[in-house]
Amino acid sequence: MNDRLLHGGDYNPDQWLDYPSILADDIRFMKDAKTNAFSVGIFAWAALEPTEGNFNFQWLDKIMDDIHGFGGKVLLATPSAARPAWLAQKYPEVLRTNNLRQKMLFGARHNHCFSSPVYREKVGIINRKLAERYKNHPALYMWHVSNEYNGECHCEYCRENFRKWLKDKYQTIDNLNHAYWSAFWSHTFNDFSQIDPPSPLGEFAVHNHNLDWKRFISYMTIDFYLNEVAPLKEITPDIPLLTNFMGELFTRGTYPSTGVIHSDFAREVDVVTWDAYPAWHNDYETTAFTASKLAYINDFYRSLKGKPFLILESTPSMVNWHPINRPKRPGMHLLSSLGCVAHGADGIMYFQWRKSRGSSEKFHGAVVDHDNSGSNRVYKDVKELGHVLESIKEIKDTSTPAKVALIYDVENFWALSDAQGFNNIDKQYHQTMHTHYRAFWTQNIPVDVITPDKDLTRYDLVVAPMLYMASKELITKLHSYVKNGGTLVATYMLGIVNENDLVYLGGLPSPLKEIFGINIGETDSLYPTQKNALIMSCGKEYEAFDHCAIFDVLPGTEVLATYGSDFYKGNPALTRNAFDKGQAYFIGPRTGEDFLVDFYSGLIKADLPINGDEEVSIQERRNEKNRYFFVMNYSEEEKEISLETAMEDIITRQEMTAGKHRIKPYGVFVLKH
Amino acid sequence: MNDRLLHGGDYNPDQWLDYPSILADDIRFMKDAKTNAFSVGIFAWAALEPTEGNFNFQWLDKIMDDIHGFGGKVLLATPSAARPAWLAQKYPEVLRTNNLRQKMLFGARHNHCFSSPVYREKVGIINRKLAERYKNHPALYMWHVSNEYNGECHCEYCRENFRKWLKDKYQTIDNLNHAYWSAFWSHTFNDFSQIDPPSPLGEFAVHNHNLDWKRFISYMTIDFYLNEVAPLKEITPDIPLLTNFMGELFTRGTYPSTGVIHSDFAREVDVVTWDAYPAWHNDYETTAFTASKLAYINDFYRSLKGKPFLILESTPSMVNWHPINRPKRPGMHLLSSLGCVAHGADGIMYFQWRKSRGSSEKFHGAVVDHDNSGSNRVYKDVKELGHVLESIKEIKDTSTPAKVALIYDVENFWALSDAQGFNNIDKQYHQTMHTHYRAFWTQNIPVDVITPDKDLTRYDLVVAPMLYMASKELITKLHSYVKNGGTLVATYMLGIVNENDLVYLGGLPSPLKEIFGINIGETDSLYPTQKNALIMSCGKEYEAFDHCAIFDVLPGTEVLATYGSDFYKGNPALTRNAFDKGQAYFIGPRTGEDFLVDFYSGLIKADLPINGDEEVSIQERRNEKNRYFFVMNYSEEEKEISLETAMEDIITRQEMTAGKHRIKPYGVFVLKH
Amino acid sequence: MNDRLLHGGDYNPDQWLDYPSILADDIRFMKDAKTNAFSVGIFAWAALEPTEGNFNFQWLDKIMDDIHGFGGKVLLATPSAARPAWLAQKYPEVLRTNNLRQKMLFGARHNHCFSSPVYREKVGIINRKLAERYKNHPALYMWHVSNEYNGECHCEYCRENFRKWLKDKYQTIDNLNHAYWSAFWSHTFNDFSQIDPPSPLGEFAVHNHNLDWKRFISYMTIDFYLNEVAPLKEITPDIPLLTNFMGELFTRGTYPSTGVIHSDFAREVDVVTWDAYPAWHNDYETTAFTASKLAYINDFYRSLKGKPFLILESTPSMVNWHPINRPKRPGMHLLSSLGCVAHGADGIMYFQWRKSRGSSEKFHGAVVDHDNSGSNRVYKDVKELGHVLESIKEIKDTSTPAKVALIYDVENFWALSDAQGFNNIDKQYHQTMHTHYRAFWTQNIPVDVITPDKDLTRYDLVVAPMLYMASKELITKLHSYVKNGGTLVATYMLGIVNENDLVYLGGLPSPLKEIFGINIGETDSLYPTQKNALIMSCGKEYEAFDHCAIFDVLPGTEVLATYGSDFYKGNPALTRNAFDKGQAYFIGPRTGEDFLVDFYSGLIKADLPINGDEEVSIQERRNEKNRYFFVMNYSEEEKEISLETAMEDIITRQEMTAGKHRIKPYGVFVLKH
Repeated sequence: MNDRLLHGGDYNPDQWLDYPSILADDIRFMKDAKTNAFSVGIFAWAALEPTEGNFNFQWLDKIMDDIHGFGGKVLLATPSAARPAWLAQKYPEVLRTNNLRQKMLFGARHNHCFSSPVYREKVGIINRKLAERYKNHPALYMWHVSNEYNGECHCEYCRENFRKWLKDKYQTIDNLNHAYWSAFWSHTFNDFSQIDPPSPLGEFAVHNHNLDWKRFISYMTIDFYLNEVAPLKEITPDIPLLTNFMGELFTRGTYPSTGVIHSDFAREVDVVTWDAYPAWHNDYETTAFTASKLAYINDFYRSLKGKPFLILESTPSMVNWHPINRPKRPGMHLLSSLGCVAHGADGIMYFQWRKSRGSSEKFHGAVVDHDNSGSNRVYKDVKELGHVLESIKEIKDTSTPAKVALIYDVENFWALSDAQGFNNIDKQYHQTMHTHYRAFWTQNIPVDVITPDKDLTRYDLVVAPMLYMASKELITKLHSYVKNGGTLVATYMLGIVNENDLVYLGGLPSPLKEIFGINIGETDSLYPTQKNALIMSCGKEYEAFDHCAIFDVLPGTEVLATYGSDFYKGNPALTRNAFDKGQAYFIGPRTGEDFLVDFYSGLIKADLPINGDEEVSIQERRNEKNRYFFVMNYSEEEKEISLETAMEDIITRQEMTAGKHRIKPYGVFVLKH
Repeated sequence: MNDRLLHGGDYNPDQWLDYPSILADDIRFMKDAKTNAFSVGIFAWAALEPTEGNFNFQWLDKIMDDIHGFGGKVLLATPSAARPAWLAQKYPEVLRTNNLRQKMLFGARHNHCFSSPVYREKVGIINRKLAERYKNHPALYMWHVSNEYNGECHCEYCRENFRKWLKDKYQTIDNLNHAYWSAFWSHTFNDFSQIDPPSPLGEFAVHNHNLDWKRFISYMTIDFYLNEVAPLKEITPDIPLLTNFMGELFTRGTYPSTGVIHSDFAREVDVVTWDAYPAWHNDYETTAFTASKLAYINDFYRSLKGKPFLILESTPSMVNWHPINRPKRPGMHLLSSLGCVAHGADGIMYFQWRKSRGSSEKFHGAVVDHDNSGSNRVYKDVKELGHVLESIKEIKDTSTPAKVALIYDVENFWALSDAQGFNNIDKQYHQTMHTHYRAFWTQNIPVDVITPDKDLTRYDLVVAPMLYMASKELITKLHSYVKNGGTLVATYMLGIVNENDLVYLGGLPSPLKEIFGINIGETDSLYPTQKNALIMSCGKEYEAFDHCAIFDVLPGTEVLATYGSDFYKGNPALTRNAFDKGQAYFIGPRTGEDFLVDFYSGLIKADLPINGDEEVSIQERRNEKNRYFFVMNYSEEEKEISLETAMEDIITRQEMTAGKHRIKPYGVFVLKH
Repeated sequence: MNDRLLHGGDYNPDQWLDYPSILADDIRFMKDAKTNAFSVGIFAWAALEPTEGNFNFQWLDKIMDDIHGFGGKVLLATPSAARPAWLAQKYPEVLRTNNLRQKMLFGARHNHCFSSPVYREKVGIINRKLAERYKNHPALYMWHVSNEYNGECHCEYCRENFRKWLKDKYQTIDNLNHAYWSAFWSHTFNDFSQIDPPSPLGEFAVHNHNLDWKRFISYMTIDFYLNEVAPLKEITPDIPLLTNFMGELFTRGTYPSTGVIHSDFAREVDVVTWDAYPAWHNDYETTAFTASKLAYINDFYRSLKGKPFLILESTPSMVNWHPINRPKRPGMHLLSSLGCVAHGADGIMYFQWRKSRGSSEKFHGAVVDHDNSGSNRVYKDVKELGHVLESIKEIKDTSTPAKVALIYDVENFWALSDAQGFNNIDKQYHQTMHTHYRAFWTQNIPVDVITPDKDLTRYDLVVAPMLYMASKELITKLHSYVKNGGTLVATYMLGIVNENDLVYLGGLPSPLKEIFGINIGETDSLYPTQKNALIMSCGKEYEAFDHCAIFDVLPGTEVLATYGSDFYKGNPALTRNAFDKGQAYFIGPRTGEDFLVDFYSGLIKADLPINGDEEVSIQERRNEKNRYFFVMNYSEEEKEISLETAMEDIITRQEMTAGKHRIKPYGVFVLKH
């Protein structure tokens, strides 16, 4: 199994226990469709423990055996993501309290209190039972711990835990008062007992308080996870742990889940995974644009542990929760799945194996449809992918050769979103990150999207857009990176607040002044229809919009472009400063992709033996022996590519000669070099 | 009285008890304006029972006598729609609890708990008093039971009643679990006591649970009504019962009230009535379009009992609660009122007789304005209508000769609206229904808009757009209808779920497969700017949008049109299947009115001795002796009509010769044939 | 000090007590920037009384001394606008209850219960301490009482106070029932105990009930203020009292704060002040339009006491709470500040002196930025203004020679906004007021914007747009004003309801009929794309929209214009009636600024020895000796002005000759005549 790319998905046989022929069909289809791995039991608590303390594993035994029977593997789930009705009824404390202090009722999922001692105890018991029963089962491959952790609770337990967390962090109330700048509006606290979570009913505008609450929620989420996995680690120490993160890319947004600090959570799992649901074929962006959004989040999750990850959920057709849900056009399932593999995925899994018959997700695309047929279009697309994944299995464990790092920081996002000032409608952090990312993606330059805790020394170029909140530690790291020869790019909204959301006094922090050779004054925030321009020394002009930092250069700093209008016309808009062995660029205004493509192409080039037309994406994975090039046509038209040397397409196992080739709409090659 | 069309409205003398000259003026104006029927006492509980157990009927005695004095009749109201302050203060249980479990405060109206034993008791007492006091009063004509029943309550009584209702329905918790597909998300219930109404604080995404709650609310509403009318039925068994339903047609929506199952409620009343408030003269549709919306709902309410109904509320000028409230232009009051009569109304009543002096509805158009004048434009329009209604009184009790039935099902609407998938912004069930309706209306073909419980055998053509939820019973009825010679038309979203919102497994249910000769696979949901086309065999092309069912034809099925683009280009888009003595058409995509007009005109023709220009609507009522044609110009321009034979206009009692005639803007003739 | 215009702002040293060098810098900058007055201690309760009953004034002593040291003055604040955490924790009653009856939590500001006996007591104690300690301090100049009073509370204390207030007002429950027209919807009250404040959970649609609640809130706010100031009046009877009102002009709205009845509150303060935050340089209106919005509110606050007022808060750069926050362009700070002085401000103060380091307002523009620099653009702008204010100090205490009054009534606004009918989206009272205002502003005609309690006899022209709610008292005053020679202008929506929001029966009240010589019938409310026209006798045509009053003229009334279309085409649209010594004009439809400029220019002319291009505003202040003309170019282009005689610019102390001069973009002269 370890030499295969995973293919399979969430399997919920507990919905079909009354339909034995369906269960038999499932196993038959699984073999037929070239699948090999299944997440089982994600929402099965009520089936496993129908009443308190009475466990029923027989149905699961059979499923495990049946999957094992055809050589499949199980990512066995812990069922904490949804509790049984009896548990909520007997122990209401397991239900959350919302930020209006209303006690929630039973229903939905992903809504348990992370603090509740009873819930932690009950989760511990069922997880221990599962681990003990299946620890030696040959199908047990990984633990799928809970599901899409998210949300927050305002119950007394959580409020008390928040206060404890604050006390651990700040030690004294005076430290907290300073960090919260609480003298403002007379909010000076005498005691930690006076502090509540942010709420529309009380405090909601103290930035660092809001930030701490988000950090605490991340901490409590991970703490709950650690409680969950304790029996698993004890009983099955060799079985890898994973949980599934999320991503937002079905509207104009493009970002990983924002409810946890990923770098903290990633340290506690063995494999990073996420649930990928792009909105293909929409009417607000090109297919290639959608693809670059997906690539961006893939690169983020791959960079979290710097190794391959899994797509733990996806759909072979359409989801049921986008505003509008279109099926994937012919070819898109293969293309989009291999697109994920191209960016580091070692497996493509689905939610879910079989469409539910009732309830809210009954129209969410699945492998087996309500027609229970192995001959419809979607099923055949899945089967085709199964074959292809087997063909290209040598890709497994190969790496991505990125020399560019883009720094993404969810804490910076939180702080920036909460900041009152400049543009209060939307600071557009995610969109800006993605625009910078696209400037590389459209040039086929591989990128790591990294959190601030990562080592920078391996990169030739580091880009940190809108680095509004920068800790002293990160500032020191950036300074050292440039000093030692790195190239750093930053933009407006740079280095404004520290990790407590307190403004750095005296202007841009000195290490940043030093490496960028600038000092930043005012920031102009433009209304939507207002534009400025960034004019390069050569005269070329680009649109500047939304935000324009107005800044001075220090002696020695090179002005590469100036502003085109307004009272800061002629002021520097783009600068370069050589600092020791490295250099640092500062981009004053928000710009479009056109400028960024031109700008970054002057700093770094793709290193590829293949060229392709626009909207053909080429992404490399490699190991010590080979380079593999995923060549993907994300357009509705046939395109041309040219190969410098002959290479083998490992999907078809056919050689492609050097020179020009056509690639069909939504076509994909995986070329070995 | 039984030979007259009703004309009058809500009369609230209890607002004017301190103004005796006003009360005298009222009676004088009533006679002058040719009115004959008044709904009295709708919100008069506080005037009838000023403190608990102390009744005061003297003012009402006088009103009854005064109305009787000029030959008028009273639709005596039960006052349950708004309770007195003392009742709410002493028995807070009569107030509702909202879906966030907040206890409501005293205020507004239509907001009593339908379960509350105290409220039921108090309503019973006052209704008994009214019935006893007026049972022999010669003015007593009908009972106007309460007012515009709507809304829901989440108090403990209601929650307990919901559980009882569920237990009656499902018998065992296992049956409920299967019907709710509760294994999904681990929601398996051990006991009915674990079930709460849907709430944003708890469960809100289990479709059948949501559906059951709506059905329960309908049940409780009717149950409350039955409690209300018990003393009336006992004491005045010969006085007809009615309550007023509502309609939504002041924005782009077009539908009857959606809070009750009309077919259930209609069985319990003697006369169907509704409150009609179209937004004439708006800036988003033509006058004719507004008229067709009004006609659609009229046809629905007429079809409920298959006999004439009443407009129980309307306005002679404007309402006060539309976003923008325009007065009716000269001629519109007569035209729109006769438009209702044309579609089966045997009476036109107003809310309200006299404009209130204060509070929230003081600017709602009424017959008598704040100027207390009998000479303003609105008053004169009412008086004119009074004369006309007397002229055309032979219309009373005539019927509508519809051979086309359009199936409207509020339960299907609930299920479809709640369904997650396809297009989650708006499934557009009502708009789609209305587009089909218009295709007949613009051709002057009479239509019954029927609920699924109705007999189909009397129709030549049955149309069931978006029949997403179809019970086995309905499927059987449709099958039998076609088998026996009927013509049936259905569209995308056909027969997907059963009455428990569980998907039919194995594709389209067999009886539907058989009659339509197709099997449906995927459904493509398009973004707003995306279009496909439906191309007829002859080459004529129509726009297809929003939803496109992709389907296969079985042997023998005729393909009348195909799709114009996308991966299902060339696939069937419109089919006809001859089945036994009948035939069934399936329309795959959503289309505009243009296609539907062409399509239906091939299936059925108007049978009229009159032709008119576009925007002239011709609607027939008939009895055994005569045919009556309402000819109505719903445009701002003079139009032409032509008569095959001479006919009498019973408004003017003048003969119109065969041949061409002009009809002025907003003009109307009622021609006897 | 009394011969200087105030310049300074909110100073919050309590945020910087741990940063002594910052505090020293502050004093240095204050002197340097030519400031002279500071509001101190606005949110300093926690610093002054860190725990209950323990006071710490030492830091404040030093600040008072230091400010005095350079000749500055202190507007000492009472700190009630934000309570310390200990106070909220120990006495939760001081926190508000919202209109859903939820108890608020500690946080934010301006959110104390105005009824709470404990809060009133605690505020009394700290205010007394402040007064006693600083009563003889030479820097004490005024009392800055609390801050931006606003909001409401629904706790039991407030509900009980509401009932008491109602009982005082109505004496008997029958009077209240009549005034609330409570027979409607059976809301007749038996007792005052049955009345609650309006709430989404209960009653919210009884207009006069809503109105009374707003009036009560205004009453309670002022009552709380009176409790606050009692110890100040007792201990420092000679120190003037002020509090800061607010204005709304950052979006398309243009109005003073609407939470209090200004005419009531103004009687209790010695100086009127307000916080002015226009959104300069936006993308939805011209600079001149923004300027006219600011001017309008300035004229309102000046007219409240008929004497100069203070801008108590403003920003030298940008705020942090507009949707988009742009810095003031070069020149705008001087121009906009002198624009306020031109309309009667005798001081320009800022929020705040120094930008906070943390929390929600850390990016609100201040005099001293985070760079702690005296050399950045914003600081220099402030310093420049400081110099100019010293140059023009002879302006202090001069008056504004307005002969036109525009009646603004917040109670009318409340009633009109709440009225259901006509156009329910937005009645546009404020926008309409401002359009009338602009017709004068663009012609440089000074205007008083007055509340209905003011004396009218001093004006040549009184304009009362949309005077929907008119008390008998006001009607009598208007009648007498015209009778005695005044010119009165009114519009559609005239005199419809009395002060209890009850409609006047019998049409337009007789005194209004008499002076206008008309009777008003229907009002047509147009949809946004629908237009009518007002056609002058000369044939000139103007657009009419939104609302068109349809009215008859009485004998003798002159019809100056008629409607251009619809069924009331040819009906009067604009009339003039000579009544006794005066005359009254009635404008039937809503019109644009174009009509109003032409119309008012026929009634009154500016009396100025200066002419200027469009977008150059000329505003006069005068005293017995001199006339001063503020000439302000509110455009981005150089403009021309011409002087009839030579005058001195008292900013530069240079003479400007008679004849033509250029004025630069955002330029300003203050010319003495």
